[in-house]
Amino acid sequence: MALGEFELIRRYFAVPELAFAHADVVLGAGDDGAILSLPPGFQLVMSIDTLNESIHFPVNADPFLLAQRCLLVNLSDLAAMGAEPVAFTLAISLPSADASWLSDFSSGLARVAQAHYCPLIGGDTTRGPLSITIQVHGKVPAGNALLRSGASAGDAVYVTGELGDAAAALWWLLGDTRLDRSALDAQNIDALQQAFYQPDARITAGIALRGLASAALDMSDGLASDLQHILEASARPALGAVIEADALPLSGTFRRCIPLAEQVALALSGGDDYELCVTVPVAKEIAAIAALKGLGVRFTRIGYIDDGEGIRIQTSSGQQHPLSLKGYNHFSESRQV
Amino acid sequence: MALGEFELIRRYFAVPELAFAHADVVLGAGDDGAILSLPPGFQLVMSIDTLNESIHFPVNADPFLLAQRCLLVNLSDLAAMGAEPVAFTLAISLPSADASWLSDFSSGLARVAQAHYCPLIGGDTTRGPLSITIQVHGKVPAGNALLRSGASAGDAVYVTGELGDAAAALWWLLGDTRLDRSALDAQNIDALQQAFYQPDARITAGIALRGLASAALDMSDGLASDLQHILEASARPALGAVIEADALPLSGTFRRCIPLAEQVALALSGGDDYELCVTVPVAKEIAAIAALKGLGVRFTRIGYIDDGEGIRIQTSSGQQHPLSLKGYNHFSESRQV
Repeated sequence: MALGEFELIRRYFAVPELAFAHADVVLGAGDDGAILSLPPGFQLVMSIDTLNESIHFPVNADPFLLAQRCLLVNLSDLAAMGAEPVAFTLAISLPSADASWLSDFSSGLARVAQAHYCPLIGGDTTRGPLSITIQVHGKVPAGNALLRSGASAGDAVYVTGELGDAAAALWWLLGDTRLDRSALDAQNIDALQQAFYQPDARITAGIALRGLASAALDMSDGLASDLQHILEASARPALGAVIEADALPLSGTFRRCIPLAEQVALALSGGDDYELCVTVPVAKEIAAIAALKGLGVRFTRIGYIDDGEGIRIQTSSGQQHPLSLKGYNHFSESRQV
Repeated sequence: MALGEFELIRRYFAVPELAFAHADVVLGAGDDGAILSLPPGFQLVMSIDTLNESIHFPVNADPFLLAQRCLLVNLSDLAAMGAEPVAFTLAISLPSADASWLSDFSSGLARVAQAHYCPLIGGDTTRGPLSITIQVHGKVPAGNALLRSGASAGDAVYVTGELGDAAAALWWLLGDTRLDRSALDAQNIDALQQAFYQPDARITAGIALRGLASAALDMSDGLASDLQHILEASARPALGAVIEADALPLSGTFRRCIPLAEQVALALSGGDDYELCVTVPVAKEIAAIAALKGLGVRFTRIGYIDDGEGIRIQTSSGQQHPLSLKGYNHFSESRQV
């Protein structure tokens, strides 16, 4: 392989489509470090995530789609904090320097970077098994970040978008026989692919919910597991939650291809949706609904916080059942894809 | 493996020795993102680096030493920018969750984090081949960062510390027969191990050189390769440099175990020293020397910038030879360790 590391980086990542100017970026890639300067009164929010081949995405994943997913799942963390994107860094390990792969990967990144005004400002390219680590940086007016720790008994629980599509997409990608492939047309398959590779990063929703949501996070492990994080972070004393099964927002594609008996469980436990789960004090629900309606983002009340024990699922008959489902856990379960 | 991802992180990384309070950290690990708030008039400097097993460090490397190296080489980038450490994030891929390994790794990180008042504020733990990515964040008064791009013809070239010890350490670790093992006593071997696993991050030197150095970087690829980066970044028009072979600062251990005929080449091309290479305008040399002397850091004038072509090595006879050596390059050379 004749192409050197620095040449590689320059050619595929130091392109104007990706390393564009941003008002808060003083110095981008090319020195020992990048420099940010935020406007007075703003705080910096940052989040880092790694995606590994065979663990988080299939071998031979389309690099154009994969790049979008890698950046979007990170931007989703900024959304969950109510932060506005500023810039990102990329540390990528590659088994070889494949020009076509790098070109497509760079194009995918650029597409998302431009859509969210979030340029690439630095990184590291090394040899190794395919592994992609991105850190995103955003800004939020001081004290206005959305945290996981503010929920109280009585708050309503809302989610953006729809639940379970990314889990259904994974069943489709992995050939899981529980998924009814015959029920899907080309448009449905596109929708599933998009749910997995191009999840919406709910940036504008997060910003709109500043001062309205009492707690927020983005769902990467599945609603059941992620809501538990809010309950634990907010617990003073212990908090519980009731989720109404009939209220869970499911897409038409999801309803079509997932057996009825599996739908609620998959919507609760399936990860990778990257929708926001937020709690909203009753007095602020109308304002929150109006704010999200203005953005065209589906925003569904799925239950409420109480001082009961754990998460309970309420069926249409009004009965409540303790939730035993758990989200995906990297080390305790095997999810090689 | 029964221990879950979140439990793992809590147990080994969310310890007070590592996730301690810092004046500029508003929120550490545990939410969707961490939050920093810098004092007015400061800018944020950041740098990200990945170290992969077999590529950047040997298989079965001591986790306590390895952790120190991982954080120190990142802090070295802050030093090269003249920045003061604030906090770091860690994205780590592990083939398995080994409690003993994690405990030692965490202790090594904590040792360096405390020494540099740079707490861990977030991260990601995933399954995969051993790979460690760290992003460090520092602060610098607005406009005072040291860049690579400020060198001019006539500036002197200085380096901190000594050159080549990390390269000699790698020869020792890999059993390279060019190294004279018989010449090394236990103290020499300790010195080599330390050069590789615990390089000094020249933070105080970088801060002291603000306003004095015209350009700076830390040497990870080797002096010859890294000085070339300063020449390219500063070139208006093209710049060159003369390095005096006799001036290169070599340690006693290095002189003892590396054959005389190899010493200059290894000091010029050996990577991993993480010493600073800076250019200093003649009018500021006395002040720079005094500043570094006050810190007890060896600071050696090894040559000067001119408008000649490329880097030339000047021997004791006064003759100049063009430099053809190159630093280590991840993709074009194989350096499996």
